[in-house]
Amino acid sequence: MQSIKLSELSHHYDQKVVVSGFVENIRNLQWVQFLVLNDGTGKVQVTIEKSDESNQEMISVVNSLTLESTVKITGVLKENSKVKLNGMEIIPSILEVTSHSEEELPFSYRDLTGVNFDTRLDYRFIDLRNEKNSLIFKIQSSLVQYMREYLYQRDFMEIHTPKLIGTASESGSDVFEVKYFDRLAYLAQSPQFYKQMAMSSGFNRIFEVGPAFRAENSNTSRHATEYTCFDVEFSYIDSYYDVMKLESEMLTYALEKVNHIYGERIKDVYGVELVVPTLPFPVMKLCDVYQELESRYGYKVEESEKDDLTTEAEKLCHQLSKDKFQHEFLFVTHYPASKRAFYHMRDNEGVLQGYDLLWRGVEITTGAQREHRYEEITKNAQEKGLTKDVEFYLQFFKYGCPPHGGFGLGVDRLTMLLLGISSIKEVQFLFRGPNRIEP
Amino acid sequence: MQSIKLSELSHHYDQKVVVSGFVENIRNLQWVQFLVLNDGTGKVQVTIEKSDESNQEMISVVNSLTLESTVKITGVLKENSKVKLNGMEIIPSILEVTSHSEEELPFSYRDLTGVNFDTRLDYRFIDLRNEKNSLIFKIQSSLVQYMREYLYQRDFMEIHTPKLIGTASESGSDVFEVKYFDRLAYLAQSPQFYKQMAMSSGFNRIFEVGPAFRAENSNTSRHATEYTCFDVEFSYIDSYYDVMKLESEMLTYALEKVNHIYGERIKDVYGVELVVPTLPFPVMKLCDVYQELESRYGYKVEESEKDDLTTEAEKLCHQLSKDKFQHEFLFVTHYPASKRAFYHMRDNEGVLQGYDLLWRGVEITTGAQREHRYEEITKNAQEKGLTKDVEFYLQFFKYGCPPHGGFGLGVDRLTMLLLGISSIKEVQFLFRGPNRIEP
Repeated sequence: MQSIKLSELSHHYDQKVVVSGFVENIRNLQWVQFLVLNDGTGKVQVTIEKSDESNQEMISVVNSLTLESTVKITGVLKENSKVKLNGMEIIPSILEVTSHSEEELPFSYRDLTGVNFDTRLDYRFIDLRNEKNSLIFKIQSSLVQYMREYLYQRDFMEIHTPKLIGTASESGSDVFEVKYFDRLAYLAQSPQFYKQMAMSSGFNRIFEVGPAFRAENSNTSRHATEYTCFDVEFSYIDSYYDVMKLESEMLTYALEKVNHIYGERIKDVYGVELVVPTLPFPVMKLCDVYQELESRYGYKVEESEKDDLTTEAEKLCHQLSKDKFQHEFLFVTHYPASKRAFYHMRDNEGVLQGYDLLWRGVEITTGAQREHRYEEITKNAQEKGLTKDVEFYLQFFKYGCPPHGGFGLGVDRLTMLLLGISSIKEVQFLFRGPNRIEP
Repeated sequence: MQSIKLSELSHHYDQKVVVSGFVENIRNLQWVQFLVLNDGTGKVQVTIEKSDESNQEMISVVNSLTLESTVKITGVLKENSKVKLNGMEIIPSILEVTSHSEEELPFSYRDLTGVNFDTRLDYRFIDLRNEKNSLIFKIQSSLVQYMREYLYQRDFMEIHTPKLIGTASESGSDVFEVKYFDRLAYLAQSPQFYKQMAMSSGFNRIFEVGPAFRAENSNTSRHATEYTCFDVEFSYIDSYYDVMKLESEMLTYALEKVNHIYGERIKDVYGVELVVPTLPFPVMKLCDVYQELESRYGYKVEESEKDDLTTEAEKLCHQLSKDKFQHEFLFVTHYPASKRAFYHMRDNEGVLQGYDLLWRGVEITTGAQREHRYEEITKNAQEKGLTKDVEFYLQFFKYGCPPHGGFGLGVDRLTMLLLGISSIKEVQFLFRGPNRIEP
């Protein structure tokens, strides 16, 4: 007989039920034993009367039972208003210990205050038993599910591009080397070149959710050597405004769904209000951002720094967007082309056809219309000093390629912002950094 | 004005329309020019009368237009029963060449007969313009979409486990080495250990779709060094029969959806009938399979070979399952424990609690109930001579872990079988093998 989810017990009063879960609590009193079971969907009290002759075997099992062991229990579910936990209890007839836990855990996961962070990561499988930690991943899964759903509804397909690549092409630095039989290969930093290849192949509308790798030796709360990327690319656009429109609609769709399912719990558990954004998202030019940051908040930077957003300016944009647009998101456009990747399109005046998207003062996306014309992309690559390594990529544009654009979103960073969590180490199932490759 | 999908043109007769696409055909006659546009969703004819004075600029553009260039056209859509292609044509007023193709393609992708396979892979972006090739990926995307959908409906969540790992743990051989700062790391061959970790963390029901890596120096039509794995793991099962049930239901659900959308086209394009399976899938013990293969088809093997299915026996299982059960799938159980991974559970008699799933005579899955008890899993690991490398994994079972099981499906192999394609190189967006790491 299959176990019933504890969240669904209330449909089964006065019936024989089978339930399973971790043993969360044991109280062994003079006349009675109480267990609390937790199966991740809910909790229930199990009550064993010591006076009952037929319970003697169970009682001795419970006498040596340890917390965090898992059990499977057959019994009858009774309504009992005296039981604080959901007003119900199970009177068991069979108790089976399905796994045994050591007496002493490396740390108590219910209260992580003061637990060394590296110890938590060493024993991540215990750390994730903490509800605040495990809920992160349910919400992340839901967020990605609904971003995909939005795209499926609009004829997008998912592709899987290789992570093993032959040339350290996109940036050249910070790439992991792999011993690949008698030669070297590299780990992809992003699927950028391959999602554009799909456009050249006439795939029209694609996305990919997969790992990306950066060999950056930075030990900060924002860097990881491996993380999950949500990448989108689509053809027959008129301008990068089409890309911004799609991204903002996709995020709004997913955040609305996540809010519906988890909004209340996010507020309870993380103390963060999920504000479903309104459409369209506000847009500002980079130079106008700096102007307003100065006029509104007295924030000044050197002219030489104004070709990109400083970290401080990014943070202030949260305030700016709220004050000016009553919005948490802000598209920033008109970055100098010299500061951007060679595959971003520029118009005839050299204006970059791309954007950054900020959420709550943090950059979550770079998006753009791509340069899809062979002569122009070749010229752009040469200007950046790239030639041999990107030759295979330039080929993609030699035999016709539709105008296209796209963006990439870091799933981990998005999760951090959604839940107001300050370290990427908390939102990765298993964090990977220069000093952390285990477990 | 945004381009209309060509598949939706028929809603726009006698209206001004904007359309975009690759130029698939050009006929330049004495009095008229005809173009055929293809945007991946459909095709349309564009008709330019040479006698019309206002067309002179367009005519000269078309005179130097090459096939495979992309264009954007503004014009009026007219019904015209004389036009063979959908009985419609566009009379253009504006023709913009959005990208220019070289005159001569490396090969003609419409008929790939006789084209060298390596040339096809070198120019995969052109090879994928072939409809038979690109359709593979639409169907694959759909298949994965509906496998996920089935799982979402049953409270499964998606996780993302690291592909960079600290120990070459699961098998030790055939693992890619990565230079990881001042030490070595490895590329994960499967998320097996980590999806089980999720069970120990109380995640209950998870899946993952991601890359897996094997450093196997085999150049066959079935091997790839990188491929996409669909992995499932869930807790509180009673036996491996629960795992078989879930997998068969998930596949049936997804195949039914795919059949609804693509069944006809799969038959037309690949000549393969998609048979939506019936539930439950048939199950046979390994020894019974060999007995019936002999009694029905006279197939004999040495006793020493009967601890696993030979490739020939696998193939014959297609016939066996059809003849005996009128079914394309077959679960095979009761493999000798000695032949299986140490983390598969055995019962008290040493019988392996796992299975292989065959489809059309090819193994597509290994699934099992896992050994979740610390003492037993430790003993199993020692018997296989594994100790230090799997120590981190054994920890997962030290502090309680629910009974659980799962399986892994190769997305590429599943696609091959679904479409009757014999080489894995055809079903990967970009194939990766010992001699193939580019583009």
